[in-house]
Amino acid sequence: MKQSDLFTKTTKNSPKDEEALNARLLVRGGFVQKLMAGVYSFLPLGLRVIRNIEKIVREEMVVIGGEEISLPVLHPKANWVQTGRWDAYDTLFRFTSHYSKNEYVLGPTHEEVIAPLAKQFIFSYQDLPKYLFQIQTKFRDEKRAKSGLLRGREFLMKDLYSFHQDDADLDAYYEKVQGAYQSVFARVGLGEDTVLTFASGGSFSQYSHEFQTLLPSGEDTVYLCEKCRVAVNKEIIKEQSACPSCGNTDLQERMGAEVGNIFKLKTKYSAPFELRYRNEKGEMHEILMGCYGIGISRLMGVIVERFHDDKGIIWPESVAPFRVHLLELNSASAKDLYNALQEKGVDVLYDDTDRSAGEKFADADLLGIPLRAVISPKTDGNVEVKSRASDTTEVVSHEELIRRLVS
Amino acid sequence: MKQSDLFTKTTKNSPKDEEALNARLLVRGGFVQKLMAGVYSFLPLGLRVIRNIEKIVREEMVVIGGEEISLPVLHPKANWVQTGRWDAYDTLFRFTSHYSKNEYVLGPTHEEVIAPLAKQFIFSYQDLPKYLFQIQTKFRDEKRAKSGLLRGREFLMKDLYSFHQDDADLDAYYEKVQGAYQSVFARVGLGEDTVLTFASGGSFSQYSHEFQTLLPSGEDTVYLCEKCRVAVNKEIIKEQSACPSCGNTDLQERMGAEVGNIFKLKTKYSAPFELRYRNEKGEMHEILMGCYGIGISRLMGVIVERFHDDKGIIWPESVAPFRVHLLELNSASAKDLYNALQEKGVDVLYDDTDRSAGEKFADADLLGIPLRAVISPKTDGNVEVKSRASDTTEVVSHEELIRRLVS
Repeated sequence: MKQSDLFTKTTKNSPKDEEALNARLLVRGGFVQKLMAGVYSFLPLGLRVIRNIEKIVREEMVVIGGEEISLPVLHPKANWVQTGRWDAYDTLFRFTSHYSKNEYVLGPTHEEVIAPLAKQFIFSYQDLPKYLFQIQTKFRDEKRAKSGLLRGREFLMKDLYSFHQDDADLDAYYEKVQGAYQSVFARVGLGEDTVLTFASGGSFSQYSHEFQTLLPSGEDTVYLCEKCRVAVNKEIIKEQSACPSCGNTDLQERMGAEVGNIFKLKTKYSAPFELRYRNEKGEMHEILMGCYGIGISRLMGVIVERFHDDKGIIWPESVAPFRVHLLELNSASAKDLYNALQEKGVDVLYDDTDRSAGEKFADADLLGIPLRAVISPKTDGNVEVKSRASDTTEVVSHEELIRRLVS
Repeated sequence: MKQSDLFTKTTKNSPKDEEALNARLLVRGGFVQKLMAGVYSFLPLGLRVIRNIEKIVREEMVVIGGEEISLPVLHPKANWVQTGRWDAYDTLFRFTSHYSKNEYVLGPTHEEVIAPLAKQFIFSYQDLPKYLFQIQTKFRDEKRAKSGLLRGREFLMKDLYSFHQDDADLDAYYEKVQGAYQSVFARVGLGEDTVLTFASGGSFSQYSHEFQTLLPSGEDTVYLCEKCRVAVNKEIIKEQSACPSCGNTDLQERMGAEVGNIFKLKTKYSAPFELRYRNEKGEMHEILMGCYGIGISRLMGVIVERFHDDKGIIWPESVAPFRVHLLELNSASAKDLYNALQEKGVDVLYDDTDRSAGEKFADADLLGIPLRAVISPKTDGNVEVKSRASDTTEVVSHEELIRRLVS
């Protein structure tokens, strides 16, 4: 894409109404725009990042048997009354139609919708197990929304729900999801910094698990066992001051940002909706459920918190809005190289604007596209390439650049 | 995909709470499920249709220069007060945060968000024109929601907004969008039945335009000029009883379902937000806007209303959830052919369930996948193929079927 066609522009100055680094850089780069506290528009570059994250998450969900669906944002009050959650959450957006006087919830999670839905299609042991996921906008009436994309009133989530005959099947799938989540975090570049974290299991299980990306700017305190590379959260450390895996008591206090959570719901939501199946002997049993979330827009914010420097964002290649940022300087033309890259199917942002080299370099650093390629009168038929993550530049032929990007 | 893995099942009986044919067939086929009046979940097969429609719409928007973004569902009250629409619409979902007492709108359209957004990035004539679109869930507090996917309280829309220096530029782009819309409707199979329809232009233009698919079950009355294949809507017929294109007064009254609309907003929304640009002489002028909608989920409903018979849906190939429905009957195995089709990248639904031939045929007719391929003891190493839209069957070799689907 030509940068002269791009709707957005970068800005030098940090927005005054943003405290969080992720929001400051993403707004300055024109990836997102704040409509109001906790509510952001995703602009062309930002939406490309979101789509890349979605694609990775979707692929990993399909690997573990997930079938994609899309559940409504509007939920009827009755379903939330049924589970006792209508009045239980302060962060629920509730409202009334002025026509019908129907009362609605804006979905922050979808157990109240998917359990009755599953009841329409799951009858016997032969219909189990089933795994359903969606990527959907969710809503929370947050008291404070000050962490940019890390804590929104409107945000994008992937939520997966699983349905099982018995504990053994639920347990086995729960392990499988852990593996899929590790693949997701590895693929978006956060693998090394993201640890499985033991959290309270509620009334049904000993533990649930969070995936926490260790970050000084994270909102959560976790206690890391460096031997096992697992952590426990605040609730758990109060109950037991040792690593649940190895018993190690030398845990390091660290800050983390929660990027995923997995939870054995068991019969918590199947019971109120009488979601049951007939086993091989013809007996009726309650179905066991698991739920598994990943914050898609939050992940985008966490990636920025993790990968940046003083000049801007440093996108991991897997989620970057483009692979190459092609700059033409001082009336040189990069048009031929742009066309050649486009023809080869390389995602390239072509800075064809009439601005100074300084402005273009500053833009490239802020936008954080993994590879910068510069054509100037000095490059003399070749192209100067530099990785956003390193300081060394290299001059190569056009063909060599294409070869590297296509192979 | 194997049908035995599919979350959903078909049902023989029409749901009692659905009047509209599109909803009855889509619910029976397991494409969608009604959560409450006007609010549907999209299940695996239904989401595949939605994604196919989205892809066609997205491609045609990109052809005419559209840049994709994603705007929030939650809008602040202030923006709607600014345009005078806070109190003007009965169908606006409005509500209040119980924490902050902030008042919100659930977006039914996005002029109130995109005009102030554009103000952040459009300053001079050099930044114009710009074309931004999104595919986003929208909300209307409908008095009655009884037409299935044709009139929802929650629905999926594509909305495109354009920004221009002057009328000539807006007019030229408006024509271009007409062409893109015709391509969209042709590609989803509705080209011949969908007519450009003259509608009121409001206070700024003589006309706006709707795209109406002529359907006995449509909610709108239109007056068709068979010479020009254009129509006028009810408002216009009151003002002038002739075709605005050719003056023909012999107009046929027909029912239609609105699948798209295009509107020259001119300065209606740029004025309240002071959305201006600096021209070549340094003078400030208001930016002219156009807006262009296509109902994605409504289109799915209209396709079903148009393409069905007594037995079920007949999907056009471009939007069908799968290309081939492969049935194995009476203990024959279609596994090898399934694997061969999968390897060639053909989207195939493989009915590997242990049910009678009658049940499988009824399913195939209801689900409406364009090509049915049957393997039975009778086919003797070959495969019996039948188009959903015709009554004739043909027996061909596996290789021949693959050849036809891959070429």
